[in-house]
Amino acid sequence: MTVPQVPDELDRSSAPPSSALATDPEYRAAVVDLLGVLAYGELAAFERMAADGALAPTIDDESAIAELAVADYRHFVRLRDRLRELEVDPQEAMAPFKPALDAFHGSTQPNDYLEGMIKAYVGDGIGSDFYREITRYVDDETRAIVLDVCADSGRADFIVDRVRAAIDADPRIAGRLALWARRLMGEALSQAQHVAAQRDALSTLLVGGTNRPGADLGDIGRMLARLAEAHTRRMQALGLTA
Amino acid sequence: MTVPQVPDELDRSSAPPSSALATDPEYRAAVVDLLGVLAYGELAAFERMAADGALAPTIDDESAIAELAVADYRHFVRLRDRLRELEVDPQEAMAPFKPALDAFHGSTQPNDYLEGMIKAYVGDGIGSDFYREITRYVDDETRAIVLDVCADSGRADFIVDRVRAAIDADPRIAGRLALWARRLMGEALSQAQHVAAQRDALSTLLVGGTNRPGADLGDIGRMLARLAEAHTRRMQALGLTA
Repeated sequence: MTVPQVPDELDRSSAPPSSALATDPEYRAAVVDLLGVLAYGELAAFERMAADGALAPTIDDESAIAELAVADYRHFVRLRDRLRELEVDPQEAMAPFKPALDAFHGSTQPNDYLEGMIKAYVGDGIGSDFYREITRYVDDETRAIVLDVCADSGRADFIVDRVRAAIDADPRIAGRLALWARRLMGEALSQAQHVAAQRDALSTLLVGGTNRPGADLGDIGRMLARLAEAHTRRMQALGLTA
Repeated sequence: MTVPQVPDELDRSSAPPSSALATDPEYRAAVVDLLGVLAYGELAAFERMAADGALAPTIDDESAIAELAVADYRHFVRLRDRLRELEVDPQEAMAPFKPALDAFHGSTQPNDYLEGMIKAYVGDGIGSDFYREITRYVDDETRAIVLDVCADSGRADFIVDRVRAAIDADPRIAGRLALWARRLMGEALSQAQHVAAQRDALSTLLVGGTNRPGADLGDIGRMLARLAEAHTRRMQALGLTA
């Protein structure tokens, strides 16, 4: 199955050159925020996914989930190392985002293996789509890292396969799982709003800053439409109504 | 600090040649059991340690714990790949040990960060010491893998440092943590007895099989004394009474 990606041909005329990291403190702060939220997001996803492996119905699935979790850890390492390259303390860059991400995970603890799988698929999916959209407004170097850590690497296929098989075996669970996915989406949006409200620097990546043009209302509307469409396609791939 | 290792000069005259894996089905079954229990042990330790990272007091500690957990995952991969080399289904080799290991982890869920650290240190320590002892009775190839996955790789230093600092800051917690370590030891021994009673093949590694001499009562007594001594030293390193 194919998860829609941000088309490469999207207008990137607003993207600053990599030199802006050195010359534009506001832009630099925004990129540090972006790397920080992504890094802590990967670390928290690693912890939760690894723990969810214990819920797996077979040891083969358990080890497959461990492998997916370790992929998140590798993403974390890449982002942490990039923060160090920028001479930023990774812990300081991540700290502002820990409360929102921990709150998201705390309020969406899966009750079983399937809920855990759907959380990884739907949660990571919407997050990755959003971060890929953001790469329209960042320099090439930052863009390459973000696209790399948001790459899917086979996770979607594995999860879709397991969830569809479970629904085929017992179609009655589809309603509960669809509700669960909607709750995940609601909690994710709620925490994203908190973060956006508190982190001006991060928000300017999207809407522009002092020396940088950003998205206008039309751009943002189209972006939200793409995100919603991608979410619907993911739900359809699982055999669930969005 | 130094965790005592099995001295290399221990008598290995009972160790079969690597060819025994092909010629002695009883020995082969014993090695498959050994690799299976180690592999699932690493996978379960990975899941629990990764999850315990969420309890860490700082993001730096949280990422250090994630790194320790990923080391367990790499050990798991090495053991799983060795089982495949031996043309054994890893899942089948691990399955007999899942109930005991899951029961151990289920009955020793840490209540806080320090309990999680002590569990990793004390539990892995006693397990690694025991598996290193067992390598006296296995072929060179199996021995190399077991010694490799039981190597400490800096974990002990990190944990000892954190636990000692916490006890220095609040000496009253030492009593609770010492009790916790004793409970861990009791649960580990209880599950080990279950496994030994159920898996004859594994037990023959230690006590010998049809064509293989093994440990006599004196050997076993000295081994238990070494294990107890190593445990006491670990507790002392933490600043706790054994």
